Amino acid sequence: MTATTESEKKKREEEEEPEQVVNPWEVSAKGKIDYDKLIDRFGCQKLDEALISRLEQLTSRTPHVFLRRGVFFAHRDFAEILDAYERGDKFYLYTGRGPSSEALHLGHLIPFMFTKYLQDVFKVPLVIQLTDDEKFFWKNLTIEECRRLARENAKDIIACGFDISKTFIFSDFNYVGGSFYKNMCEVGKRVTYNQAVGIFGFAGEDHIGKVSFPPVQAVPSFPSSFPHLFSGKENLPCLIPCAIDQDPYFRMTRDVAPKMGFHKPALIESLFFPALQGETGKMSASDPNSAIYVTDSAKDIKNKVNKHAFSGGQDSIEKHRQLGANLEVDIPVKYLTFFLEDDDELEHIKKEYGEGRMLTGEVKQRLVQVLTELVERHRRARASVTEEMVDAFMAIRPLPHMFS
Amino acid sequence: MTATTESEKKKREEEEEPEQVVNPWEVSAKGKIDYDKLIDRFGCQKLDEALISRLEQLTSRTPHVFLRRGVFFAHRDFAEILDAYERGDKFYLYTGRGPSSEALHLGHLIPFMFTKYLQDVFKVPLVIQLTDDEKFFWKNLTIEECRRLARENAKDIIACGFDISKTFIFSDFNYVGGSFYKNMCEVGKRVTYNQAVGIFGFAGEDHIGKVSFPPVQAVPSFPSSFPHLFSGKENLPCLIPCAIDQDPYFRMTRDVAPKMGFHKPALIESLFFPALQGETGKMSASDPNSAIYVTDSAKDIKNKVNKHAFSGGQDSIEKHRQLGANLEVDIPVKYLTFFLEDDDELEHIKKEYGEGRMLTGEVKQRLVQVLTELVERHRRARASVTEEMVDAFMAIRPLPHMFS
Repeated sequence: MTATTESEKKKREEEEEPEQVVNPWEVSAKGKIDYDKLIDRFGCQKLDEALISRLEQLTSRTPHVFLRRGVFFAHRDFAEILDAYERGDKFYLYTGRGPSSEALHLGHLIPFMFTKYLQDVFKVPLVIQLTDDEKFFWKNLTIEECRRLARENAKDIIACGFDISKTFIFSDFNYVGGSFYKNMCEVGKRVTYNQAVGIFGFAGEDHIGKVSFPPVQAVPSFPSSFPHLFSGKENLPCLIPCAIDQDPYFRMTRDVAPKMGFHKPALIESLFFPALQGETGKMSASDPNSAIYVTDSAKDIKNKVNKHAFSGGQDSIEKHRQLGANLEVDIPVKYLTFFLEDDDELEHIKKEYGEGRMLTGEVKQRLVQVLTELVERHRRARASVTEEMVDAFMAIRPLPHMFS
Repeated sequence: MTATTESEKKKREEEEEPEQVVNPWEVSAKGKIDYDKLIDRFGCQKLDEALISRLEQLTSRTPHVFLRRGVFFAHRDFAEILDAYERGDKFYLYTGRGPSSEALHLGHLIPFMFTKYLQDVFKVPLVIQLTDDEKFFWKNLTIEECRRLARENAKDIIACGFDISKTFIFSDFNYVGGSFYKNMCEVGKRVTYNQAVGIFGFAGEDHIGKVSFPPVQAVPSFPSSFPHLFSGKENLPCLIPCAIDQDPYFRMTRDVAPKMGFHKPALIESLFFPALQGETGKMSASDPNSAIYVTDSAKDIKNKVNKHAFSGGQDSIEKHRQLGANLEVDIPVKYLTFFLEDDDELEHIKKEYGEGRMLTGEVKQRLVQVLTELVERHRRARASVTEEMVDAFMAIRPLPHMFS
């Protein structure tokens, strides 16, 4: 099949089913994202109660709020990671970020907050890839600007509390080479251009930098890409916590992994954090009022939540008391579902608000409190991250106690 | 224009004009390669007498036999390199080899013999790229096998007599990373897939490793790819001696160079060394009798020349004495044109043989002598190349006296 036929086929599919587009560069939907459809189309599995209970039993810890609330909702081979853990076998975590903006918003923090939980409960090593090359390819930025953003973003990531004795952060412009480059070539040799078009939707007008990128994001799934960490451990399985829009990269990776003699990486995948204006996609860096940033002041947060957070409450107090709020579309409740840790309080708010006894203003006030605390905590943590700490996390070094 | 349209266009062109195909992976022609047509199609210039005389004047040295005999016959901006040299400005040389076979044949030696001459007369630094990644992408070989071949080939290259104080040899699997990788990304961002299809003829079934390769061969043309050599000399012009089948890579490179703030690399390009069986293309590694290898014994050489070298002599001695040899198709005379240094002797042979006074056997005997000496000299030189010398040439190091 030729490139165009394939891309035309894809285009036709999108024309036939245009209600949602989810890939690493675009998330959009008419109305809400249908995550069940996404699971079906991508071919991953739903993360069900049984698997979460098993995780709870194995780790003797209450599952993370993102698991209890269905934020991480899909997976590939997560059961096999739990099997390995149960047998006492080791694995490692891999996550990453494309450093396209100076300030992270709350949606950006989610994979890192969750990855920190996984590192804490499983006590395993973690590699974090900053894809500054990807951002150079897709954005109108210089390499130096992308590298600077990678370093700034590393500070926010470190502020999430990762254990330096188990964590290696790297940027592609600093790290690509050696075994990592060899693995890139091994992957590149096993993916045809037509396949890449099928997975990523590349067009003939796209530059070859973009076409050459997928192997870069694939290879941190393979232990031999990190000889300073995993020398002699080429069989170590890998678990990737990420948002579901990254699934195409790892679908490709899972196809080639066995041909290269590696385990297929396992995945645990999150839904998207909704924009303040409502749940139709990811937050947008081009509209500062669509998101809460970790750099927002308490006043910013209060203004944004009060002015821009889409409410499911009724138009008048009378009508609200009578009908209650529509929790399905209410952004303050969605945000509390992500960030209010107390299950009882969340249930209480949802009941009182849903039945009209609590008003939008009261829910927003509680959300402002929760977010302000979260952002303040992050800001304090980030302020204490020094350049030396960044250097230390990014140093190419062994992690002698990574499994203890 | 879509990829397929472009590649179909190319296919149509080839169907319309199928008499010769010349690209980095295929050289074939019905009959002899028409080099004038190639110059015209590629858009390079003929290396004329005036330019060669100017080189002779500037360097006060008899031009290399490969220049006197038209082996290096085409160029791009070579006059500008001579201008720079005349002004006392510096430049550097870049050449390379795809290490696909253990033993080199005489055709493989030609660019290196010529590059050594250029290094000697201009006293400039030289970088030699061993594209072990390219061979991994195009051949059914493992990375380790490609790396081993790169190292073996490096010994043959070193045996050509390069000055270690001015020469850096690197293999892509050892060297890609850092500034080199950054430049690869800068090139990749500036070449669309459609353009790559137009230049290299990629098809949708080709893997993305191939598509990602052209930037790897492009970037040694840019001084900043070698910070250990050219830090602070980002304006240094580059001259690339190579066979003309490599022109597509550098056409692409010359397109992007100014957009990246670099000089367009200059080129000096050779024709192909003909197979023993006749002048229809390059020699083939799959037919050992099509070429003289640097590993051939004196006996091998004698047998190959006597049995397989296509002769322009006549069928019978009587007819030969009467008509003389057809020098246009005679391989022994072609080979002597490449390797017999004495201009007077070559003219004498051509005259005597062309007018029937000299017989094929006599010409072949002289050729066997010349080639045996050349191969013996190479073998002795290669035997003295130690692993330590390979390490020394390939060490990532400054070249403190590279211009003196």
